Amino acid sequence: MKHIAILGFGVVGQGVADLLTKNAKEVKALIGDDVNIKYILDLRDFPDSPFADRVVHDFNVIKADDGVDAVIEVMGGSHPAFEFSMDALRGKKHVITSNKQVVAEFGAEMLAEAKKNGVCYHFEASVGGGIPVLMPIIEILRHNKVREVRGILNGTTNYILTKMFTFGDTFEDSLKDAQAKGYAERNPDADILGIDACRKIAILGGLISGVSVMPDLIHTEGITAIRAEDVALANQNACAIKLLGRAITEADGRIMLMVAPFLIDADAPLSGVNGVYNAVEVIADPVDNVMFYGRGAGAGPTASAVVGDLCRCFTEATHTAPFAFEKKSEMLADFSAFTCRHYVATSACLCEVKKAFGEVTVLSEGKELAFLTGEMTEKAFADAAATLGDKVLSHIRKLA
Amino acid sequence: MKHIAILGFGVVGQGVADLLTKNAKEVKALIGDDVNIKYILDLRDFPDSPFADRVVHDFNVIKADDGVDAVIEVMGGSHPAFEFSMDALRGKKHVITSNKQVVAEFGAEMLAEAKKNGVCYHFEASVGGGIPVLMPIIEILRHNKVREVRGILNGTTNYILTKMFTFGDTFEDSLKDAQAKGYAERNPDADILGIDACRKIAILGGLISGVSVMPDLIHTEGITAIRAEDVALANQNACAIKLLGRAITEADGRIMLMVAPFLIDADAPLSGVNGVYNAVEVIADPVDNVMFYGRGAGAGPTASAVVGDLCRCFTEATHTAPFAFEKKSEMLADFSAFTCRHYVATSACLCEVKKAFGEVTVLSEGKELAFLTGEMTEKAFADAAATLGDKVLSHIRKLA
Repeated sequence: MKHIAILGFGVVGQGVADLLTKNAKEVKALIGDDVNIKYILDLRDFPDSPFADRVVHDFNVIKADDGVDAVIEVMGGSHPAFEFSMDALRGKKHVITSNKQVVAEFGAEMLAEAKKNGVCYHFEASVGGGIPVLMPIIEILRHNKVREVRGILNGTTNYILTKMFTFGDTFEDSLKDAQAKGYAERNPDADILGIDACRKIAILGGLISGVSVMPDLIHTEGITAIRAEDVALANQNACAIKLLGRAITEADGRIMLMVAPFLIDADAPLSGVNGVYNAVEVIADPVDNVMFYGRGAGAGPTASAVVGDLCRCFTEATHTAPFAFEKKSEMLADFSAFTCRHYVATSACLCEVKKAFGEVTVLSEGKELAFLTGEMTEKAFADAAATLGDKVLSHIRKLA
Repeated sequence: MKHIAILGFGVVGQGVADLLTKNAKEVKALIGDDVNIKYILDLRDFPDSPFADRVVHDFNVIKADDGVDAVIEVMGGSHPAFEFSMDALRGKKHVITSNKQVVAEFGAEMLAEAKKNGVCYHFEASVGGGIPVLMPIIEILRHNKVREVRGILNGTTNYILTKMFTFGDTFEDSLKDAQAKGYAERNPDADILGIDACRKIAILGGLISGVSVMPDLIHTEGITAIRAEDVALANQNACAIKLLGRAITEADGRIMLMVAPFLIDADAPLSGVNGVYNAVEVIADPVDNVMFYGRGAGAGPTASAVVGDLCRCFTEATHTAPFAFEKKSEMLADFSAFTCRHYVATSACLCEVKKAFGEVTVLSEGKELAFLTGEMTEKAFADAAATLGDKVLSHIRKLA
């Protein structure tokens, strides 16, 4: 009998408990043993739950119990998730998490602690929900040189953008609709400001580079500045606008990380990923480009990934993930050197634009002027845009 | 030092040799040992190749050499690939293959033989080229109930269909273009008649059901009957036409397998997979739908999957894949009971159509009448269509 504790009995925690109960037979066939949910840690009580008698309010009960083989941390937030997880690892308990914030900020420490104690620290569910993303990338990494990992990493913002594209709605109306449907929280900042996507790209960047960078150092833009006019123009030019996380391997070994909206040509694989779906694209030699697609959130998909990780703890020779994050923020490439084409909408005239940006590709003229610059660094773009001041109405980067 | 033999030195075999040479350092770091290509089996000589001195013409040389740890079979065709692979497995050599035909027809026997001898039989490259497909599905299978696996499994036909959709070209012209570009062979039958896709869906069906069915028992249609008129009408109705392989788990435990063109709504994830790309979609509880996308062929991607499998042989505790195919053609569900909506173009009038099919959804009237039936079994459809005789100009199933 394997004994586990679930930290946090919200949507995901209950999904995990349900899946372990419903598929107990399959899990037993796989790991050769029953799994017993011995403890559920939550501040609340759940008198109507079939697991009511497992609920404890003090983590020390779990920490002190050497009979607990694995801890499933699905409480969210960095603290006390970090401290509880470290305590569990030190006590030679496997830790599985869906908590992207704690992995992005403290994955390096926890992977090291897990290794020291000969137990696993797994976090497949922290990126892309139920989609197998991290394990396939590790497979690809074995014998490919990864040039870039990029993805639509947040379902809420993708739902909002899809709504804006399909119905021509404004950002504000689309956000309200997402909240009404339960896809966005009442305080939607972590999603719409790109913070959630930033944590995920920090994790993916760590995976392909071995280098862990604190999320708050990563250039992060959300989707709040995207206007219905930009969407209409993108549509006319056979483009989508998607909030992308990108992790690019630089020639000097550093890693370029960012979260920002990008204009994407309609024939690029990521452009067709709509609604609450997520997708992660890997570009590597020699495998070329490969994409993983699915539901990035929700109790069922997330629980699927968590239980998959749990089984792996018991079926594989005990080990940590086949990689480590080394915390080295100096390996983050300088965003001001990032180069791409830029879409701009402006109230300036074409002569002012040409003076600032040189030759541009005009997309539309009329009430406002919209154009694409040539390839420019962030720094060069910022300098040029500054000369137009508040005549810059909108700015979105273009995916090459 | 690990010694390997490559059977067949065509595009894939050379890709494997190149990748092992180019990434020798990465492979060594991973498996903790050098990999030496000891033999290359081919009927031809390759005097200008850096591997010229490894070429042998007689498989018995490889078979007799107990120093060979693994055999990479990339010769294609069932015979003598099957016999050579079985000999290698009996000699306790791991076998890795990209050869879908031999896996589809004899995977059951070879997995059993591998298990008996404590070695691996891996075939990730046989479906989806370089895309990690089989391993992620095995991961998902661990604790999900898979309802269906379906996919665009053949890049040649997808290229032809994409060409027809983008330019309104006929099938014949699009095939010629694919041949000119090297995407279709001079004898394109295995691709355009669905035979290649059929072998792959047989493998995927085996994976999710554990049951192996001989490919020639699977209902298989190609794309040769698709007309420019059908494509135009699909376009008008916001649909794509894709050649799909489908493996559906039936309630009674049997498995429904098929290859046929399907009309797909434009917002379905598979509809946006264009050109030579492949994609495999898995629909399962609780993970919902997940899709894997990438290049389904080519030396680089295929070699990536083959070398991944090779590394796995040496890094994991020696074992076969965590599943077996049991050869049981009686577990194939009866295709005549398969149910879906059907698109039909006909020279019959609406009254004849209603007499045959009952109420239908008319898509266009004019030179010919095009309509969608309600949900009907294959048998009911065939009976109804028979009453219209050669007035049925085209018939394509609709993906629900």
